[in-house]
Amino acid sequence: MTRIDNDEFAILEKLDYRLKYITNLFKKIQHKKYESYVIARLWHLLSNPEIKFVPQQYVKRNNNQYALTDLYLPQVSLHIEINEPAHYSNQEIEERDSIRNTEIQDKTNHLVKVISFQKNKYEFKSLFEINKEIDDLANFVKNLIDKSKQNRTFKPWGNEDEFTALHFIKKGSLHLNDEPSLKTIEEVCALFAAEVPYRGYLRKGGTPHPKYSNYFIWWPIEKNRSWNNKISINNDTIYESHNNMEKRIKHVNDTIKHNHKRIVFYRNTDVLGFTFYRFKGVFELNLDLTSTESGLVWKRISEEFVL
Amino acid sequence: MTRIDNDEFAILEKLDYRLKYITNLFKKIQHKKYESYVIARLWHLLSNPEIKFVPQQYVKRNNNQYALTDLYLPQVSLHIEINEPAHYSNQEIEERDSIRNTEIQDKTNHLVKVISFQKNKYEFKSLFEINKEIDDLANFVKNLIDKSKQNRTFKPWGNEDEFTALHFIKKGSLHLNDEPSLKTIEEVCALFAAEVPYRGYLRKGGTPHPKYSNYFIWWPIEKNRSWNNKISINNDTIYESHNNMEKRIKHVNDTIKHNHKRIVFYRNTDVLGFTFYRFKGVFELNLDLTSTESGLVWKRISEEFVL
Repeated sequence: MTRIDNDEFAILEKLDYRLKYITNLFKKIQHKKYESYVIARLWHLLSNPEIKFVPQQYVKRNNNQYALTDLYLPQVSLHIEINEPAHYSNQEIEERDSIRNTEIQDKTNHLVKVISFQKNKYEFKSLFEINKEIDDLANFVKNLIDKSKQNRTFKPWGNEDEFTALHFIKKGSLHLNDEPSLKTIEEVCALFAAEVPYRGYLRKGGTPHPKYSNYFIWWPIEKNRSWNNKISINNDTIYESHNNMEKRIKHVNDTIKHNHKRIVFYRNTDVLGFTFYRFKGVFELNLDLTSTESGLVWKRISEEFVL
Repeated sequence: MTRIDNDEFAILEKLDYRLKYITNLFKKIQHKKYESYVIARLWHLLSNPEIKFVPQQYVKRNNNQYALTDLYLPQVSLHIEINEPAHYSNQEIEERDSIRNTEIQDKTNHLVKVISFQKNKYEFKSLFEINKEIDDLANFVKNLIDKSKQNRTFKPWGNEDEFTALHFIKKGSLHLNDEPSLKTIEEVCALFAAEVPYRGYLRKGGTPHPKYSNYFIWWPIEKNRSWNNKISINNDTIYESHNNMEKRIKHVNDTIKHNHKRIVFYRNTDVLGFTFYRFKGVFELNLDLTSTESGLVWKRISEEFVL
């Protein structure tokens, strides 16, 4: 008998990562049929597997507010907002959107482009007009890419080879901007030439850095039977607590006593269904926020770790 | 107070028909994410709103079998079959598909092209390879379109103006090949300058042709409280029967006595969600198959009606 329970996973492993990524992205937004049309057309017109598409990008706004934009092209710092045909256009909504987009541009220095199916308050654009508008947007993006290539600042969207320790060892450092993502604990440990720890059949959540005793390599899982961990939406704070009160108290006290820094590889599944150990930076304990009741609170102190 | 219950319908009415059609098509096939990828890429690369895409096209095969192809481009008589990445490739399935495609080509004189994500039994194509393959297919289709334009046989896929009586009156005839589709009974009657019949709040299912007394203009609805009508999958046979046995017997006997031919506009909703009165040809009663138990059986005798 051969094991086939992991067949679906095995088959996906063999498929081109970027092909899985982009088809998962289209699947994710399939319920918005006009938004899907715009994003698919843009993707196929650019026809460049090196350009990354990010759906629902988190962006900071004023007053601790945040926004999620429909599409983000990180390599050219461009957000795209798509206004699907609505029952009626509303002055209030339009003004609110316009303020939001200006805030995003001010706060991030990113550009925001809007594609709208509405010609005016009473009319929709035709298929021909919408196609033309997306064609213009694609040319705009191509220009940005060309400029970025001329300035030698263009970083092509990579394929599977980026999900390896070797890729980052060659690079010499981990940086949030590169979104380091690894598939296994073995790969995480390989980054630091650390031994992979085992503890019975329950795997440890981390291991000390083999060279720097004040650093701990940590790969928390979002939630399981024992732990209840959470990362803030802007990724700079991690809440760690054991579900069992007695164990939580002991864990909090032990960690405060030891007081190390953590190099964090947060394991979660993104909106497109990909599970990775994602580098989130270097964190240290925030003693003001930490308590035995609520657990440990970790704050990011660096976006980079030199290997 | 304004009526807003039909708002969704009203708004859709104002949207470009071909834009609604193609986004409905993508929505229809969304659960097949790799098939969707191929069809979307082909659509956007062709970038020509005059090329019609038909999903799940019915095709005759040998021995009264039929097949549904993934995509059909009627203007160039081309079927496209997409083989999504499968857990494993199977010799038997491959041979069966190949026989099927040869049968379709022999039976219809249409071409069948296959896009497969599988490179061989053990490997998948990369994103780059799949893109390239769809690009080649798009160029192939563009060539067919160009040839068809040179031969002056190309019929552009029309927009809303095709769903009017005026369009077909100008043309001088109704033919199955043009898929005449009308939105209202008023438009159907306008084709023949026939008066629109009313009968209380229950509309009649047809009206006599104002000039030819042996022809009856018929617009059956697929099913309602009174009637149980059905059209065969190849559209050449219609089964008509009243749900009430007493009324069915009277109706069958009356119709046999009168024995007219019917110009049929069959009202149904297609796989993309569009409801039309669709011209299905001219039909006459098949007395061998008709009975008071099973109802009337109509057989197509002509694919055309000259106006």
